Amino acid sequence: MEKWWERDDLTYKDGQLLFAGRVVEDLARQFGSPSFFYSADRISANIGRLHAALSDAGFGGGLHGVNYAMKANRFAPLLTYLKTTGLCTIDACSPQEVEHAISCGFSPEEISFTATSLSNRDFERLSRLDGLIMNCDSLYAIRQWGERGAGRNIGIRINPAVGIGRAQNELLQYSGGRTTKFGIYREQFHEAVDLAAQFGLTVERIHFHTGCGYLTPQLAVWEKVVEECLWFIDQVDTVRTVNVGGGLGVPHIFRDEPLDLELWAGILRKYFLPRNIRVEVEPGDYLVKDAGLLVLTVNAIEKKKDTIFVGVDAGFNLAVEPAVYGLPFQPVPARRRQGDEVQVTVVGNINEALDVWSSEVSLTPLVSADYLTLINAGAYSSSMSSNHCMRGEFREFLLL
Amino acid sequence: MEKWWERDDLTYKDGQLLFAGRVVEDLARQFGSPSFFYSADRISANIGRLHAALSDAGFGGGLHGVNYAMKANRFAPLLTYLKTTGLCTIDACSPQEVEHAISCGFSPEEISFTATSLSNRDFERLSRLDGLIMNCDSLYAIRQWGERGAGRNIGIRINPAVGIGRAQNELLQYSGGRTTKFGIYREQFHEAVDLAAQFGLTVERIHFHTGCGYLTPQLAVWEKVVEECLWFIDQVDTVRTVNVGGGLGVPHIFRDEPLDLELWAGILRKYFLPRNIRVEVEPGDYLVKDAGLLVLTVNAIEKKKDTIFVGVDAGFNLAVEPAVYGLPFQPVPARRRQGDEVQVTVVGNINEALDVWSSEVSLTPLVSADYLTLINAGAYSSSMSSNHCMRGEFREFLLL
Repeated sequence: MEKWWERDDLTYKDGQLLFAGRVVEDLARQFGSPSFFYSADRISANIGRLHAALSDAGFGGGLHGVNYAMKANRFAPLLTYLKTTGLCTIDACSPQEVEHAISCGFSPEEISFTATSLSNRDFERLSRLDGLIMNCDSLYAIRQWGERGAGRNIGIRINPAVGIGRAQNELLQYSGGRTTKFGIYREQFHEAVDLAAQFGLTVERIHFHTGCGYLTPQLAVWEKVVEECLWFIDQVDTVRTVNVGGGLGVPHIFRDEPLDLELWAGILRKYFLPRNIRVEVEPGDYLVKDAGLLVLTVNAIEKKKDTIFVGVDAGFNLAVEPAVYGLPFQPVPARRRQGDEVQVTVVGNINEALDVWSSEVSLTPLVSADYLTLINAGAYSSSMSSNHCMRGEFREFLLL
Repeated sequence: MEKWWERDDLTYKDGQLLFAGRVVEDLARQFGSPSFFYSADRISANIGRLHAALSDAGFGGGLHGVNYAMKANRFAPLLTYLKTTGLCTIDACSPQEVEHAISCGFSPEEISFTATSLSNRDFERLSRLDGLIMNCDSLYAIRQWGERGAGRNIGIRINPAVGIGRAQNELLQYSGGRTTKFGIYREQFHEAVDLAAQFGLTVERIHFHTGCGYLTPQLAVWEKVVEECLWFIDQVDTVRTVNVGGGLGVPHIFRDEPLDLELWAGILRKYFLPRNIRVEVEPGDYLVKDAGLLVLTVNAIEKKKDTIFVGVDAGFNLAVEPAVYGLPFQPVPARRRQGDEVQVTVVGNINEALDVWSSEVSLTPLVSADYLTLINAGAYSSSMSSNHCMRGEFREFLLL
């Protein structure tokens, strides 16, 4: 493989980019742009790798589960496909998401719910769904859930007060440092457990989530988070499961190394296996990000001062990670033309300075009307898209 | 006025927040939350103030025009209202926006179009609209427009290579420093003018846009931009109009002073009046931002460690300025309860660390089910909203 991002199902052959066994240029010609394409096989492979790592670490049989964080990508065909594989259940964070997952074929017992700042109406909607797996994020949530007598087993989302921010962007820091809105801190934990008991609720699960997009270098901090979490588990003898959230990252740029899953699972083994605790994990990025492409058309290519700008037919409103989180996209030409690579800046069609897909990246030659692919566009792209400047139109395709 | 944000049409009376002559709590009770409310009178007053400043500076009669940057807020009733006032025309940045403005009652001759990275299909759609006022952002755009013979007069968007970024957020810097995708630099300007001539296009307008949200302290830099722009005007003797873009800001926090319009217009007078140049301005924020409220319901109020969190029923996906641009919202309780102000952090219902409306702000006491208002929510809020976590639902009301 010549490029850092190439793999068996995403590589050039005879100058054409292949993805999931398809010629990307053919897909684009047939369906136009901007279009998202998702590879079902890649998603299954990603989930399979996670299952294997957990099983290999000793969490075999019923000792682990994978919930897909549907906020990463809620495209209905993708959700239904996941249901049919039987490989994962769902992590949802709003009543609307829960109902959407159900509409795609999941049942309430297959949906783990963790949210923040829920309204009375939200609790009302959720309490109708027998079997929903509820994690309470606050004392308020325990009280609301308890008063509705809606399910006798709950999880408590805790805040371990240490956390991980992806080095390049502190915005992704969830806990640690300054007090965040998420979960229950040590200071209120006993009050939370007592409150649950008052309502006859059994705390069977501890949930925490402490970062986003972490790769191998961040695992040392992650281990501290896991360690901190043991205090909470040891306070409540009814706890049988720990939900370690998501956060598993995917390489974005050539310097990134993939997450070492064996190391990651080894940390879980070290702390949870001796306690015979079931481990649940709720990835979004890790399952779908590298299974999705956003295919765009090149409009103008024009040198302005010292910079060659490649303008494409979609802007940051369709995939906000560069603008909101500082996570760049790797552009890949659908057709690899002959010639030396040229340094270009790929920009979108929105009248805003932050509408830049990739700055000063070296690409094989492009001409107007070529298709340009943004890889790693399977997560937090279409699901967070807006109609800013009324440039919100796009299509999505599940490649099965 | 007790608070920095209070004004005649936004103030407390008998403990109730009044906006545009309405009791905000009554509006919220009737229509629920999250809801945006826009004051037509405030928008008209904002435009009127701008007209007065330009007229007072000597740009009377036909010597100035105001185009409303509809990407700030494209709510159809608001656009139609603006058309009926006759106070402004439209600045649009995509074919979809142009067609939407037309659907709301404007005609193509009332629409100034300035965009970037347009596709062939975009040019095709636009060229059907006789009378559309086109500003070309690149050599490519001049060629595309010229080839279609679609209108004999154009503007050229230039890039003066100096610019303004709102101090608190460099992301808003449009030109200056690093080369941006916008407009035509000095280096390519003569080529652009020659190219226009080849197609028989008359360059009657110079367009530039160089910043966002600037207030009085930024006017010195803005003057430099205006000065730089003269070079371009003086190259082309057919230029009759200069479009100075938008960028006029609105105070966001108590330390901000409103923009001194007289100073601003004085700069335009100094440079353009002696040349007998017509001035167009294209504000978005300045016209609608402080004319809009986002009304939310308080869910949980809960102390976590040292911080009191007020959780509300909408998150950053409905109004992205705090998360994307670092511009905070001022929260204002709809009902001013008795008691000392309390320092709180107002947070939304999205599972992300950046979902914070306002950190450590002092508010009069709140209880669950109270309505909380975010002021200055009239621009770049609903228009940039997404359905992230499927929390995208809201309503909008024009108060006439």
